Amino acid sequence: MKKYIVGVIGAGRIGLLHLNNLKKLPHVSVKAVSDPYIDQIEIESADTMMLKSHQGIMDDPEIDAVFICSPTPFHVPLIIEAAKAGKHIFCEKPISLDLETTEKCLQEVKSCGVKLQIGFNRRFDPNFAKIRKVLSEGKIGDPHVLRITSRDPSPPPIEYVKISGGIFLDMMIHDFDMARFLIGSEVKEVFAAGANRIDPQIGECGDVDTAIVTLKFENDVLGVIDNSRQAVYGYDQRVEVFGASGSIATENKLPTQTVLSTETGVITEKPLYFFLERYQDAYVQEANAFFDYLSQDVPSPVAGNDGLAALKIALAALKSLKKNQPVQV
Amino acid sequence: MKKYIVGVIGAGRIGLLHLNNLKKLPHVSVKAVSDPYIDQIEIESADTMMLKSHQGIMDDPEIDAVFICSPTPFHVPLIIEAAKAGKHIFCEKPISLDLETTEKCLQEVKSCGVKLQIGFNRRFDPNFAKIRKVLSEGKIGDPHVLRITSRDPSPPPIEYVKISGGIFLDMMIHDFDMARFLIGSEVKEVFAAGANRIDPQIGECGDVDTAIVTLKFENDVLGVIDNSRQAVYGYDQRVEVFGASGSIATENKLPTQTVLSTETGVITEKPLYFFLERYQDAYVQEANAFFDYLSQDVPSPVAGNDGLAALKIALAALKSLKKNQPVQV
Amino acid sequence: MKKYIVGVIGAGRIGLLHLNNLKKLPHVSVKAVSDPYIDQIEIESADTMMLKSHQGIMDDPEIDAVFICSPTPFHVPLIIEAAKAGKHIFCEKPISLDLETTEKCLQEVKSCGVKLQIGFNRRFDPNFAKIRKVLSEGKIGDPHVLRITSRDPSPPPIEYVKISGGIFLDMMIHDFDMARFLIGSEVKEVFAAGANRIDPQIGECGDVDTAIVTLKFENDVLGVIDNSRQAVYGYDQRVEVFGASGSIATENKLPTQTVLSTETGVITEKPLYFFLERYQDAYVQEANAFFDYLSQDVPSPVAGNDGLAALKIALAALKSLKKNQPVQV
Amino acid sequence: MKKYIVGVIGAGRIGLLHLNNLKKLPHVSVKAVSDPYIDQIEIESADTMMLKSHQGIMDDPEIDAVFICSPTPFHVPLIIEAAKAGKHIFCEKPISLDLETTEKCLQEVKSCGVKLQIGFNRRFDPNFAKIRKVLSEGKIGDPHVLRITSRDPSPPPIEYVKISGGIFLDMMIHDFDMARFLIGSEVKEVFAAGANRIDPQIGECGDVDTAIVTLKFENDVLGVIDNSRQAVYGYDQRVEVFGASGSIATENKLPTQTVLSTETGVITEKPLYFFLERYQDAYVQEANAFFDYLSQDVPSPVAGNDGLAALKIALAALKSLKKNQPVQV
Repeated sequence: MKKYIVGVIGAGRIGLLHLNNLKKLPHVSVKAVSDPYIDQIEIESADTMMLKSHQGIMDDPEIDAVFICSPTPFHVPLIIEAAKAGKHIFCEKPISLDLETTEKCLQEVKSCGVKLQIGFNRRFDPNFAKIRKVLSEGKIGDPHVLRITSRDPSPPPIEYVKISGGIFLDMMIHDFDMARFLIGSEVKEVFAAGANRIDPQIGECGDVDTAIVTLKFENDVLGVIDNSRQAVYGYDQRVEVFGASGSIATENKLPTQTVLSTETGVITEKPLYFFLERYQDAYVQEANAFFDYLSQDVPSPVAGNDGLAALKIALAALKSLKKNQPVQV
Repeated sequence: MKKYIVGVIGAGRIGLLHLNNLKKLPHVSVKAVSDPYIDQIEIESADTMMLKSHQGIMDDPEIDAVFICSPTPFHVPLIIEAAKAGKHIFCEKPISLDLETTEKCLQEVKSCGVKLQIGFNRRFDPNFAKIRKVLSEGKIGDPHVLRITSRDPSPPPIEYVKISGGIFLDMMIHDFDMARFLIGSEVKEVFAAGANRIDPQIGECGDVDTAIVTLKFENDVLGVIDNSRQAVYGYDQRVEVFGASGSIATENKLPTQTVLSTETGVITEKPLYFFLERYQDAYVQEANAFFDYLSQDVPSPVAGNDGLAALKIALAALKSLKKNQPVQV
Repeated sequence: MKKYIVGVIGAGRIGLLHLNNLKKLPHVSVKAVSDPYIDQIEIESADTMMLKSHQGIMDDPEIDAVFICSPTPFHVPLIIEAAKAGKHIFCEKPISLDLETTEKCLQEVKSCGVKLQIGFNRRFDPNFAKIRKVLSEGKIGDPHVLRITSRDPSPPPIEYVKISGGIFLDMMIHDFDMARFLIGSEVKEVFAAGANRIDPQIGECGDVDTAIVTLKFENDVLGVIDNSRQAVYGYDQRVEVFGASGSIATENKLPTQTVLSTETGVITEKPLYFFLERYQDAYVQEANAFFDYLSQDVPSPVAGNDGLAALKIALAALKSLKKNQPVQV
Repeated sequence: MKKYIVGVIGAGRIGLLHLNNLKKLPHVSVKAVSDPYIDQIEIESADTMMLKSHQGIMDDPEIDAVFICSPTPFHVPLIIEAAKAGKHIFCEKPISLDLETTEKCLQEVKSCGVKLQIGFNRRFDPNFAKIRKVLSEGKIGDPHVLRITSRDPSPPPIEYVKISGGIFLDMMIHDFDMARFLIGSEVKEVFAAGANRIDPQIGECGDVDTAIVTLKFENDVLGVIDNSRQAVYGYDQRVEVFGASGSIATENKLPTQTVLSTETGVITEKPLYFFLERYQDAYVQEANAFFDYLSQDVPSPVAGNDGLAALKIALAALKSLKKNQPVQV
């Protein structure tokens, strides 16, 4: 198998996570990491250069592929730059918060002929992948109803909320992608309900922190997603698909399977705290899938159009919330 | 404690169920059961007369209270007749499928000064009662989100579907009552989505068999209910309330707690088949609560207005489905 | 179906429990209850006499069957008296603490030709009955290993411990019966280990409060039972049978299926507190089985020899503990 | 932190597993792997030499530590050789099947002043580590009863069974170590019961494939371990400690948390298949613990004496089985 030479752009939390995983892949070598604000990273090795600017990565003809892990506003310019430099691209979600920009960006990628994978990591989680598999095998028959519960353990800093694009574009976009991934059909209409229950500051930003969105799919499946920015018991990530011959659901993943019985009750562990812990395996599988995609003549496991489709649903949900009307996607 | 003399009107499935439970209550005596179509019932005893007409019950001055278990169209006339005869009333849900009729009926009951309890049996189920208790004690803080899943094991006969009033008035009305009961606030707006996935005949009746309804409560809680007329794995009755300090949920109740591990997997039992099995305890508690209500100066555990409120939500859901718009209750 | 006229001897906790259940059976009438120390019982009715002496029951030719619920030392004389009076007998466990006395008693019953059922109530619990059924159907193949965990929520009063015959004859005897019932083969050898960990007073009585007994069955199954007189989280009643094609186990039965998730953890309910709650259904089924047995030409669901066999194992366990040696049953 | 240079002796299944894990540790470099029968390994890299003989590892002054992963009969000579060469040692369990040999070996290690860790990997499993932690924190009070269930998915080849030392030295030795680790007290007496139920060939080797061993600890805890060589539903690894204030137990670890509900029942996944899958995390933590131990002035996380103590219990169990008597350890 060919050895891939990779550059990582952005050395924040998610950049370091990918870097850490890439270093463990046998056929991958990380040649450079760039970040304008970070001088030194913990997981450094003799083989990896630390750069101030991503330019060094784009200009390096040895580098086959880039991992774009910078803040969202830089995604589109970096994708276009990498595509023009002939590098394959893994980019964190979302491509951008704007539909037109996203579409133009994807056209550019297409015309450059490079490969692109978007960072919807949850598709690679063993639980959700198993649900997809059970559905594909027809074990529950035609799906009728999809239910997704997705609750963060605590809200992000208010400064982040302000530029995040709001709960639908920042948080529920993962669930919109999950919905499309599992049901295998497009969402045609959404109705969004929202409330500001966790932190008044979030409301002051014009955002909600609690939301329920109903989905109608083209194949007649009905779906519902509920989000909260704060579940005190930890990261709550559950999915259920109900169909003609049964249902397939996933419970939360726990740190251990221990059960403590005392005078208080019978106590199991809280869910794994947040996405870094919960999706640890998923991030590794995501990186593996990227290099399988590079080395084979197969479609992208998470194509640019998947990013676009999720964005469209999120924008429709936002519009629905504001108008208190169902909105066509 | 006073001994109550009771008459049961209607000896179909639900009438027999109540009769059976009433016979086990220490301070209750069932003097008569009436049904125009049934000559003999299995659970008969020397103490209980079998009548062709309910008139014998209404006219008997010894009878303190009636259980109205006839088909829905007879509920209102029987309630009014019993109220005028000065008898306390337990009536199966729904009072009627029509708002105005229901309101007039409740006024009549009020003016006659008799007591009335509506048969929303699920309030008395130990699981839902426990959720209510946990909420009242503030153990999960202010509620933010309510999720109800309610799926029948198989659809009723198509002849029944035709006169049932449809999924919202016939089936989801239980969940609307549960929603009000648990959250302790009124529903102000609903949005309904529905599909015909189980049986085309149901669609031909103008009804849906799969539905998701979003609820907005006056206290800012968001809720969602999903219904299906057919879950092949049995009667699926789950509720979750998510709040500021945690969540309280109930899993399905199973016939036994056995776990079979084989090469196939680790298998637990399917949920109890249907409402007769699932709510066996609830029906007993419901009857107990009725006689506690009769003997004490307390509000009705399920008042006429509770029946009215659930009906209003159901009618709003029906309207929402038809208009594909959110509808104020 | 014939109506059976019954007398209940002993109106303590277990006597009242049976009385309460008998009153709900459609084809049974309790004519009299006797207890030398109790003048009045709560569940009385016009139909049931309260007697000081059991003599009135034995002498009443109308009475078909007796429920013997007196303290253990009176079991044998009452069984013999009832047998001679030609009455069918339900007797609480154990028949007696002595082997020879038990054997003579059973011979007397046999020669009188009356029917006898011993009160090993757990056989009628839906969970254990289901395990038996799964085993009978061969779903886990030949059984290899049996594990029983049986822990009381709190020890009995020390005065009771003194006359109880010790943990093996008083408490684990239920598990010995369960072992025989499930495996369908005789225990040929036991090895008992015990400790005094809960209350020093129990040790001063020469008894243990914590015990593990290994069983060897004639059909080559190995079994192990662990008992404790005090589980602070409630009555712990679990069984597992492991076999060539899988295992069948039962978890504890809980008051509700609710799950509370908070910052503390994910909390389910404690097991039902003690035998009155846990085996409520089993006691009803046990009474039903007794009258089915009376009305049909079938073997006793819990024969006198079952009582005898469990006693033999318990006595062997006691001997094993004292000698620290395996003992043949 | 110092970088450790390591040699791995033996490139069979367990050797490759350790090699794979060592390559991912940031401060560890594997300089050489030796195996007389294997020419090439899959996980090779430019940095790692493949040797025919372990001599090259022993003679290399740069190598700080060795991982001994050869068949059991070579453990003692290799430990002694490595100790004399001044290398720290990680050795797979058991040190040997013979008590005297083991003791002499440990004396040699001691006199050479090198560090030694034995491969009881399960101590590092997050589930068992959590149980140990809960016990240390006193959350269940003084322990009274320990129950361990340990069942393999399928028996090893009969050729392996013949030289394995039998079920107690080969398989249950892990559980004996777990017992000592969790309870923190020495086992003073055992009683073993065994049967040949899986494969007659195992019986022909003089071995059993199904066993129950009762343990008495010096601190008055009673324990029981059950083993089977074949659980058709997969690797069954459960532990429960019951104490004065509650119990702490672990359920099996499953590949995913998915639940499939169909007409058949409610089905969760089977346990992870075998030790490579089940203890994947434990093996990584074990390696981490070894290098923490090397770099700090702390006791061995699994000392030579831990290996010795488990061996003593296993030999006592074997003797107990043969004599059908309890045996002092």
